[in-house]
Amino acid sequence: MKSTILQALDQVRPERLPVWFMRQAGRSLPEYRKLRRGTTMLDSCLIPEMAAEITLQPVRRHDVDAAIFFSDIMIPLRLAGVDVEIQPGVGPVLENPIRTRAEVEKLPAPTFEDASMITAALKIIRDELSAHKALLGFAGAPFTLAAYMVEGRPSKDHLRARALMYADPKTWDQLMTWAAKVSNLFLKVQVDAGADAVQLFDSWAGSLSRNSYVSHVLPYSKMTLEGVAGPRIHFGTNTAPFLDAMAEVGVNAIGVDHRTPLDEAAKLVPGLTLQGNIDPAMLFAGEDALHGHALDVIQRGQRAPAHIVNLGHGVPKDADPGVLTELVAFIHSLTPEQLNAEHEGVSI
Amino acid sequence: MKSTILQALDQVRPERLPVWFMRQAGRSLPEYRKLRRGTTMLDSCLIPEMAAEITLQPVRRHDVDAAIFFSDIMIPLRLAGVDVEIQPGVGPVLENPIRTRAEVEKLPAPTFEDASMITAALKIIRDELSAHKALLGFAGAPFTLAAYMVEGRPSKDHLRARALMYADPKTWDQLMTWAAKVSNLFLKVQVDAGADAVQLFDSWAGSLSRNSYVSHVLPYSKMTLEGVAGPRIHFGTNTAPFLDAMAEVGVNAIGVDHRTPLDEAAKLVPGLTLQGNIDPAMLFAGEDALHGHALDVIQRGQRAPAHIVNLGHGVPKDADPGVLTELVAFIHSLTPEQLNAEHEGVSI
Repeated sequence: MKSTILQALDQVRPERLPVWFMRQAGRSLPEYRKLRRGTTMLDSCLIPEMAAEITLQPVRRHDVDAAIFFSDIMIPLRLAGVDVEIQPGVGPVLENPIRTRAEVEKLPAPTFEDASMITAALKIIRDELSAHKALLGFAGAPFTLAAYMVEGRPSKDHLRARALMYADPKTWDQLMTWAAKVSNLFLKVQVDAGADAVQLFDSWAGSLSRNSYVSHVLPYSKMTLEGVAGPRIHFGTNTAPFLDAMAEVGVNAIGVDHRTPLDEAAKLVPGLTLQGNIDPAMLFAGEDALHGHALDVIQRGQRAPAHIVNLGHGVPKDADPGVLTELVAFIHSLTPEQLNAEHEGVSI
Repeated sequence: MKSTILQALDQVRPERLPVWFMRQAGRSLPEYRKLRRGTTMLDSCLIPEMAAEITLQPVRRHDVDAAIFFSDIMIPLRLAGVDVEIQPGVGPVLENPIRTRAEVEKLPAPTFEDASMITAALKIIRDELSAHKALLGFAGAPFTLAAYMVEGRPSKDHLRARALMYADPKTWDQLMTWAAKVSNLFLKVQVDAGADAVQLFDSWAGSLSRNSYVSHVLPYSKMTLEGVAGPRIHFGTNTAPFLDAMAEVGVNAIGVDHRTPLDEAAKLVPGLTLQGNIDPAMLFAGEDALHGHALDVIQRGQRAPAHIVNLGHGVPKDADPGVLTELVAFIHSLTPEQLNAEHEGVSI
């Protein structure tokens, strides 16, 4: 029988509501921090046994319905030969930011010399993961990759990425095509190695106007998913004004951040499964507030064909893992009557 | 005769299109960096001659139509006796974050022991500023203040502020009321000393859902403007989903970030003057792209009763001041025919 996540991605409502958390693997877990000690972030993604173990840790601990492959959206750059590192407390840093036509043209070919460590990690996970859990692959969408590549490091406003987009559309096209190709390859490697479905993250798309997104970003996100087998989820934050456009990349489900209630999102992307959107802040608000809010999210999610419960963004690094475990148990315990009741939950 | 900014705030279209820039005073100007050397940010706001000079620098250099008082949204906290500092490269840092009922109750009374340095600075500016330039006062909206107070420092997600809002509405009410009172006082001091109009900044409101904004934030922003004489502008970023709710605080104009085209914003807040919304990224995109974009913004702005040209967010610290000066001259040079032409500008 298909896992509950895959049922939901087929727009079928499974018997038990499926739940997983973005960033469930990683820094919020003590067993992760222990295992990672002495290994850089990107290296840990490239050691098959370590990446597999980190992927499985939150599944064992929280009983979530999906494992999401532990990796980083910068890994395809590294595999293509770009000099990128994740600096602790900072984020992705490129030795040489890519801002001009000449710099884009000097990028290595968008191919991987060797992705066997990704394949090996996924095979370990696939072997250990029980059949009723889904294994999710993922990649960063080209805009989010390009934003890092142009800025050279995390930035609040992505000004230089947008400036390049406006000032030199041809160079922008080359850069975005490159980013789409490496993310596309990364997704295919994961699916070939056993991922059941994939999520495309466009974390920074919310810094764009709808027009900019549609003209300068959407075509490349589509390109990223070309030829990728299996169901797809697409997620961004601050993208309420163009959630419908994001759905045009060709997906089964849209991930929604905490800002847009799911009943409203269901109207914006009719026919699609919704994923989300518990406010991560609620993890710090105590059990009563968290349960009330989760119930509200779930009841609103009934307006979509199917719903995969998740947070509206990644697990905060200082979240209490016990709160997440308890939240999964609460969600799994909900009865059909509770799911369908109206106005029982607490709106935020 | 009224300055062009004040005409626009009265919903009258002045003969020449008015323009100013958020953060026009400050770090982008070499004369500012020179003057500030050796003085902390908050101290520089509290030395009348220095605050006045910094306020006037961009008016002299760029010929913008408004001076905005050089200060900081944290100044009302300092004037009320809260231990706050602006750390270079970080932002506002509170010695003691305010997260519990007990900590809120220990806040000093929301009154100023001495605001004479604010009054003195504004009187110097008023004396030196030509009559056809507007003098704008400003304050931070309570949510943005509370976000800093609860986190204790700048934060991307404001998780702890939202957690307090959800978990303990009574403490939230006390904190927001306190913040509203000090910002209200700060605005009144500025208007009494000669500010022609005020802008209320709610920079972080975009981290909220519409429901959260309406229930937990809007009433306190209204409170902040109670009894403040003169026209008001209200600005936030990432607030497209509740721009109409922001207008309910009682304002003459709404500041719009670069994500929402002004013709769409005009439909969301009919009858109000619009301010904005040149994408700051365009300052790095070259003159052709910048002019094309500015023209598009201005032509879309014709759908509002009046338009005050501005950026969609603050001047980036590494912006070239020469680009800003040239942009003001370009905007002032536009003929009525150019303003009213359709589809001449370049959409982003």
